[in-house]
Amino acid sequence: MSKTLSSTQRTRLTRHRERGSEDRSDLYAIIAEALVCHVGIVRDGEPVVLPAIHAADPDGPDEGGTLYLHGSVAAPWLLQAPGQTVCATFTLVDAVVLARAAFSHSMNYRSAVVYGAARRVEDPAERDHALRLIVDHVVPGRSATLRANTRKELVATTVIAVALAEASVKARTGGPKDEPEDLAAGTWAGVVPLTVRAGAVEPDQDGPIPDDVRHRLADW
Amino acid sequence: MSKTLSSTQRTRLTRHRERGSEDRSDLYAIIAEALVCHVGIVRDGEPVVLPAIHAADPDGPDEGGTLYLHGSVAAPWLLQAPGQTVCATFTLVDAVVLARAAFSHSMNYRSAVVYGAARRVEDPAERDHALRLIVDHVVPGRSATLRANTRKELVATTVIAVALAEASVKARTGGPKDEPEDLAAGTWAGVVPLTVRAGAVEPDQDGPIPDDVRHRLADW
Repeated sequence: MSKTLSSTQRTRLTRHRERGSEDRSDLYAIIAEALVCHVGIVRDGEPVVLPAIHAADPDGPDEGGTLYLHGSVAAPWLLQAPGQTVCATFTLVDAVVLARAAFSHSMNYRSAVVYGAARRVEDPAERDHALRLIVDHVVPGRSATLRANTRKELVATTVIAVALAEASVKARTGGPKDEPEDLAAGTWAGVVPLTVRAGAVEPDQDGPIPDDVRHRLADW
Repeated sequence: MSKTLSSTQRTRLTRHRERGSEDRSDLYAIIAEALVCHVGIVRDGEPVVLPAIHAADPDGPDEGGTLYLHGSVAAPWLLQAPGQTVCATFTLVDAVVLARAAFSHSMNYRSAVVYGAARRVEDPAERDHALRLIVDHVVPGRSATLRANTRKELVATTVIAVALAEASVKARTGGPKDEPEDLAAGTWAGVVPLTVRAGAVEPDQDGPIPDDVRHRLADW
């Protein structure tokens, strides 16, 4: 797989090109860290944006690797997506950047926007693999500790795949970038870093928290 | 303003209707807590989903109140949005729900999906008001501590408005909902609450952290 993303008309950055990355590993890192993505489809000519959980497989069968999404067979967006181009957007907000001027306020973030034709995954082995990856996206290693999906559960689930071939990646880091004339004004400015943290686990089952969950908690 | 959201074909929930809310105050609460939203537009017949910062004004001029979005005049999506229907989606991930079976895994979340025709805000007073609301969305009260926007800054900024009239609100709370036959299996299950927390502030300016920022930090 190419280590770089080659931009297309859809993925070429028009604003703040200096924030872009063409490194495919940055794309995979953002997708791995984002717990959910926002998937856009077009329905009756209008946009629909829904949050979804996902997983990426760099060794998946699609060009650039495969992004997997899943949901109920009854979910309209999963019925409508196959064959059409979908847009999956991943956003990590790393900090609020408070500048001297309102105009210079910003956020530090890492984001990725993926475009691709959605493919309905029909092959049982690929479906099983995708569903395991989605569980492991949330808690690495957890799928191996769970019973296999039943036939009824599999029938009730739609899995779609999108190639990780066409994507833009953008990030902002650092402090406020005020105009020189604003620096002397004395207005307080600074960066407030933000992170997602886990609170106290609420067990629903007796017994020790398993290793996979403990390891995941250490990252939160 | 009506206290309830009346559903339309676009906003009627098709899955897990019991998670829905028609209380407009729930919509405003989610929009207030979400630091960013994901905005979908249609470009050349295909979906584009981008993260954006926003603010809501319950007393805004649009039916149901007004959602404001802004950005550079050079941003293609802000040029294309006016006149077309946009979809703005707000997602708060409150917890990861680890069940006994992969199929029963879930997340606790609060989300809102808003549909509406984007209106380009031209009136200088409304533009100024919207830009202040967007600053105050991040740090309430901060806009009053900043100098006014310059003419050059205003010319460089596009503001769009979307009515908060047509929206769906959905939330999941609680623990795993496993099938009875899985409860005896002994697989560990539980809920991992997640919250966004602020780290140590990185000042870019001497002097004490102002009250507005300190109050905001107390919520993170």
